[in-house]
Amino acid sequence: MNARIDEQASGEAADIERMMLDIGTRARQAAAVLATARREPKDLALMGAARAIRSSVADLMAANAADLAEMSDTASDAFVDRATLDESRIEAMAAGLEAIIELDDPVGGIIARWEQPNGLQIERVRTPLGVIGVIFESRPNVTADAGALCLKAGNATILRGGSDTHRTSSVIHRCLVGGLEDAGLPADAIQLVPTRDRTAVGAMLRGLEGAIDVIVPRGGKSLVGRVQDEARVPVFAHLEGLCHVYVHAPCDLDMAREIVVNSKMRRTGICGAAETLLVDRALAGSHLKPLIEALIAAGCQIHGDEDAQAAAFAVEPAVEADWTTEYLDRIIAVKVVDGLDAAIDHIRTYGSSHTEAILTDDRRAAKAFMDGVDSAIVLHNASTQFADGGEFGMGAEIGIATGKMHARGPVGLEQLTSFKYCVHGNGQIRP
Amino acid sequence: MNARIDEQASGEAADIERMMLDIGTRARQAAAVLATARREPKDLALMGAARAIRSSVADLMAANAADLAEMSDTASDAFVDRATLDESRIEAMAAGLEAIIELDDPVGGIIARWEQPNGLQIERVRTPLGVIGVIFESRPNVTADAGALCLKAGNATILRGGSDTHRTSSVIHRCLVGGLEDAGLPADAIQLVPTRDRTAVGAMLRGLEGAIDVIVPRGGKSLVGRVQDEARVPVFAHLEGLCHVYVHAPCDLDMAREIVVNSKMRRTGICGAAETLLVDRALAGSHLKPLIEALIAAGCQIHGDEDAQAAAFAVEPAVEADWTTEYLDRIIAVKVVDGLDAAIDHIRTYGSSHTEAILTDDRRAAKAFMDGVDSAIVLHNASTQFADGGEFGMGAEIGIATGKMHARGPVGLEQLTSFKYCVHGNGQIRP
Repeated sequence: MNARIDEQASGEAADIERMMLDIGTRARQAAAVLATARREPKDLALMGAARAIRSSVADLMAANAADLAEMSDTASDAFVDRATLDESRIEAMAAGLEAIIELDDPVGGIIARWEQPNGLQIERVRTPLGVIGVIFESRPNVTADAGALCLKAGNATILRGGSDTHRTSSVIHRCLVGGLEDAGLPADAIQLVPTRDRTAVGAMLRGLEGAIDVIVPRGGKSLVGRVQDEARVPVFAHLEGLCHVYVHAPCDLDMAREIVVNSKMRRTGICGAAETLLVDRALAGSHLKPLIEALIAAGCQIHGDEDAQAAAFAVEPAVEADWTTEYLDRIIAVKVVDGLDAAIDHIRTYGSSHTEAILTDDRRAAKAFMDGVDSAIVLHNASTQFADGGEFGMGAEIGIATGKMHARGPVGLEQLTSFKYCVHGNGQIRP
Repeated sequence: MNARIDEQASGEAADIERMMLDIGTRARQAAAVLATARREPKDLALMGAARAIRSSVADLMAANAADLAEMSDTASDAFVDRATLDESRIEAMAAGLEAIIELDDPVGGIIARWEQPNGLQIERVRTPLGVIGVIFESRPNVTADAGALCLKAGNATILRGGSDTHRTSSVIHRCLVGGLEDAGLPADAIQLVPTRDRTAVGAMLRGLEGAIDVIVPRGGKSLVGRVQDEARVPVFAHLEGLCHVYVHAPCDLDMAREIVVNSKMRRTGICGAAETLLVDRALAGSHLKPLIEALIAAGCQIHGDEDAQAAAFAVEPAVEADWTTEYLDRIIAVKVVDGLDAAIDHIRTYGSSHTEAILTDDRRAAKAFMDGVDSAIVLHNASTQFADGGEFGMGAEIGIATGKMHARGPVGLEQLTSFKYCVHGNGQIRP
């Protein structure tokens, strides 16, 4: 009996594997068309998709209501909130597509150009990456955001959304495909995996026999961790943003107070939120207590080392785990360090290579910190909450990457491209 | 008895795994020092290594003689030749190190810089990649080349050379370490895996628990294939160079003849050598026979389709396998195609995304070909044998990559770096 069920299950798994390979083949074919598509049809497709989303409010709300009705009672409020659409969120989704229309098309841009002594003219030209797999949790708007950003960079996309919002994602996907078809682009340029079965995710992580060039996970730490562990293709992601602010002498206290509070408290749930405050012993006497008090006044809990505990009554003792915890909450770990090298060591030991800031009036110390810290983003006298593609002027981003290969930091349109060398000769042969 | 041998073997394997993890940890520590090392000590180390190599001719020759003496009788002449050192090859190795000294240090270079409306100054700054694992066959000079190039780009290197030339590589490695120590850089910046056991390769391919950032295989197709299949870290490589030359009407016949013969015959054993000639039907009548005759006159065998067979008596019939064979020899496959799209289709179906050339006087056709062909290098009216970092003006290269992530085409110093964002503020917080 069990054997028969297993057989049936593995039969279904084999069907899904076959279906996924077919999706990969069709994405690869669409990518070949997109690779030479000009800007106009891509923008037309986004315009059509935005229009379709605006005229599908009723369908979207109905699909979303059906998704929410089936959602488990144990789902957290935050989870349900992320999964929920309303009219303003639908309008924001359409406006997001229009914002991507405004961005320059990176494809075909010449990154570098030079001439060799033999007259060969060499150009390094931006090209699409190819096929991007996006695996996301139950935030239906990612369907539109990710699909549109990949399309603008000339890539085909395979989207695998959270099963809890599959109906909602399907309606959004239908709007995107409508835009593609209106613009004369292949409908397979943006595909949504039509099954909730998890076999599909495994197949994507193995790359669909070479069809997927890169995977972008969008979601919490467990999703990203699974993707990073299991993917056999490159991944653009950050596992967590364990961001540090280091205050180094001399440092204007008012500036430090503003930046520390902003880094931690502006929004505590984003990856650029500070999780650890390092205060140099050289100014601990003057700065530690005011900084801690400002954080407490802003509603933050402090887990501190002995120095921090001595500075304010409300500070709870920090344990080892505090230095490696991404709270994503109104909590910060605070430690006094003995100089710049100790700060860099702490960050190297406990950090996640995402974003760190040094606050100081000493420009040489700032340079040493920025050289020595091996993170995607290092800031001097600015809030860690600037770790964001929009704030970098890149327009929309599909996420932030902490890997060192290809894309690092905010992953915007340019980071979703590759390049090729175009060499122009007039008969040169190699001696 | 067998069980005991297995136990012993697995005990040894565990020892090797432990040793490799230790090598990884030490490489990571050395990389942290190299990350902020200025140009001078790195160049000093290369100078010292070149000096040491020149003064170690006797040791190198003795070690090499011992390696060669133990080599299997079944080793091919080409294999033995690659493994053999003589005085001129030793001098070339030292001179190669000196050539790397002359190259600019890529680390710290500012790739892009812009200011945001809020006054934040954002710089994208080149940084080392970290730790590079190099797995190579029995070409002892790779020890020096690869170690030096990685060092100049600020990376620590773990070298795993072919076991047949382990003694020779060890002497070269000793010279490199002498240079590092003279320059005050960590000796662990360039490590040579001290065992011939293959367990070490497997451990490197799994990344030594995050210690290795990228693997560069240097060797034949079977080595590269194994590395690409098994590596759990990014790989810079090309599996093969199945390069095409496509002749499109109108095209000057003299130019075509020179470039076709050069692309195939200048050196047949390199990855940029042409393996397939595609002739457009529109000029097959005028060009096919002269091109085939020029190749035959240069000593090349032709495996051709029916049109090619009709053009010259000596043409052997091509079979399907000819379109996918990287001959690396005095053989070329020849086919007549019906237009530009058919040429692009053929290349997409059979090519290896390495290097392709179009020969034509029609600039629009050249542009369409270069846009449509998804290879690392596409040339117009120039020989495929220019597919080389030196010919691109990049100085030394560690290889050519056909992947689309991070490095594509020749992998020189710049391609051995990553980058970070350095953001300079004066108190900015995010609203």
